[in-house]
Amino acid sequence: MKARKPLLAALAGERQRTPPIWLMRQAGRYLPEYRELRAKAATFLDFCYDPVSAVEATLQPIRRFGFDAAILFSDILVLPDALGQRVGFETGDGPRLDPIGDAEGLARLSPEPNWNRLAPVFEALDRLKTAAPNDVALIGFCGAPWTVASYMIAGRGTPDQAPARLFAYRHPDLFATLIDLLVDASGEYLVRQLAAGAEAVQIFDSWAGVLPPAEFERWCVAPVAALAAKIRAKAPQARIIAFPRGAGAQLAKFAALADIDAIGLDTAIEPKAALAALPERLALQGNLDPLALVAGGPRLDDETDRILEGFAAPRAHIFNLGHGVLPETPVGHVERLVARVRGEKSS
Amino acid sequence: MKARKPLLAALAGERQRTPPIWLMRQAGRYLPEYRELRAKAATFLDFCYDPVSAVEATLQPIRRFGFDAAILFSDILVLPDALGQRVGFETGDGPRLDPIGDAEGLARLSPEPNWNRLAPVFEALDRLKTAAPNDVALIGFCGAPWTVASYMIAGRGTPDQAPARLFAYRHPDLFATLIDLLVDASGEYLVRQLAAGAEAVQIFDSWAGVLPPAEFERWCVAPVAALAAKIRAKAPQARIIAFPRGAGAQLAKFAALADIDAIGLDTAIEPKAALAALPERLALQGNLDPLALVAGGPRLDDETDRILEGFAAPRAHIFNLGHGVLPETPVGHVERLVARVRGEKSS
Repeated sequence: MKARKPLLAALAGERQRTPPIWLMRQAGRYLPEYRELRAKAATFLDFCYDPVSAVEATLQPIRRFGFDAAILFSDILVLPDALGQRVGFETGDGPRLDPIGDAEGLARLSPEPNWNRLAPVFEALDRLKTAAPNDVALIGFCGAPWTVASYMIAGRGTPDQAPARLFAYRHPDLFATLIDLLVDASGEYLVRQLAAGAEAVQIFDSWAGVLPPAEFERWCVAPVAALAAKIRAKAPQARIIAFPRGAGAQLAKFAALADIDAIGLDTAIEPKAALAALPERLALQGNLDPLALVAGGPRLDDETDRILEGFAAPRAHIFNLGHGVLPETPVGHVERLVARVRGEKSS
Repeated sequence: MKARKPLLAALAGERQRTPPIWLMRQAGRYLPEYRELRAKAATFLDFCYDPVSAVEATLQPIRRFGFDAAILFSDILVLPDALGQRVGFETGDGPRLDPIGDAEGLARLSPEPNWNRLAPVFEALDRLKTAAPNDVALIGFCGAPWTVASYMIAGRGTPDQAPARLFAYRHPDLFATLIDLLVDASGEYLVRQLAAGAEAVQIFDSWAGVLPPAEFERWCVAPVAALAAKIRAKAPQARIIAFPRGAGAQLAKFAALADIDAIGLDTAIEPKAALAALPERLALQGNLDPLALVAGGPRLDDETDRILEGFAAPRAHIFNLGHGVLPETPVGHVERLVARVRGEKSS
């Protein structure tokens, strides 16, 4: 019998001597071959919706670094796009959406995503099934309902997503309608990604950290729990990773309520504290500071060792960053990181 | 014997039926009388360094709302200014400093603040001693070393103060030199504020939340602990509040190591969790979401009640926001908040 892929083994709770490694935003601007590929597409959405480009961008970091997982190259905002909201990306300045400010804006959204619009995503996953190396797990993803909603309301990233928080205080029923729509759409979107070839899915709640406790429970924990339940109902074999960035002191509450297989930890979480606070069934993914990867050198080695030692046995650990790879990251530092993590095997 | 001022009683650990209340950034742009006063000064630093303006700005919210504390109107960046770094403020766009990028930039700083430059701050406090109502406590403040250093390195606010974090990874010894300088300068600065009339001081660590655990201990916890010790050595009667915004899961570590009287809690901290996790000797200050204050109405009442009930007896509680008052806050909402908090007295 063939050995399970290392990432999938970790997601099943298996501790490995060398933790599987992949990096959030491992396909991206820090890679010269990515910049070359990206330059050929007119817009970022065109790039995401071209299966050939998406497959190539997904595989570039696998070829270079031999990561244990290939995460589909795409963006969390293809979902609002498929729901009929206007989505664009300004170079170096992030996403721009036509902000939703009231019931009318909400009513203009489709009740479900235009699946034809998303067909290239599924086609990319289908191609990756055969194009990716045999021991590399294929990860699909979406944004968590709160995070996606916060962009849909603000129309852009902001320092603390205040527009969506204020909207939720002023119009809790309308906001709940949007969140429910996103739970349904994201659930079906991930189920279709799994059907197309993804072996695991990650739910990115990049803005989980800006919510006070009651709001966190209502707009972050409950929707992710509902989303995970929807996936389980239709794809019981699915492996689910959630990444509630900035959850801080509210992390344990999150982990207790959502039926997930692994939790992605941001840089502020102490590995030992996570081991103590989170249910044993959960694999832990993380959490090197992306800035340590930019810095490189012995300091990167020290931080890498601290992470490797911190996520102690017998807990399953997946090595990752605590946030995405930064564009200014030298490629050589990523090579150094991978070698150090894998060097553990022979030590 | 005259009753102690409510804020000072709380800082001494005394639980009161009606918690004393003040709000971070209670003097500011949401007040029409502030905007009128501010318009008379050419630059924001001119405004801060004019004792008449600073006293007036400090007292405006006291006259309007009858808060239990008047916090000196000033800015955390007067300290880098007094250390010889060029500091300016662009309207609506925050501070701009000549960024420090290397050992030479660091060497250009004075070894100690130009106390003549800061004389207007002390004069404002001296005037406030008699100008403030008798039951209103006078609070001085400074930025925490990490937070001030992060502006000095980046030259501005950034989404996550990455420039300073990267500098600290690359040049830990240089960064330690800067932090040590700031510990000394801030300690002496607060001691002089106390001598001039401040009855309590607050240390604002607004960017505490962006640091990974080891960095948090080194650049946030240890410097604040050293700063508190310096104040205690020269002003044993001082009351010290620290506000490590975003400390999240690392809050208990912070509270255990710094000899402070109260801790300011940001919006993400659950009151009951804070009661359980933090030493009993500490008064707890916070932590209404400033956006709930912008939203107003019954939702503001609910959130206010949740805070009042959450910070349960017998712990001393100081009602405050979890971050500063936002410029778009309607004045009527602040009146509503104060009435609700004080209405507890007769219920």
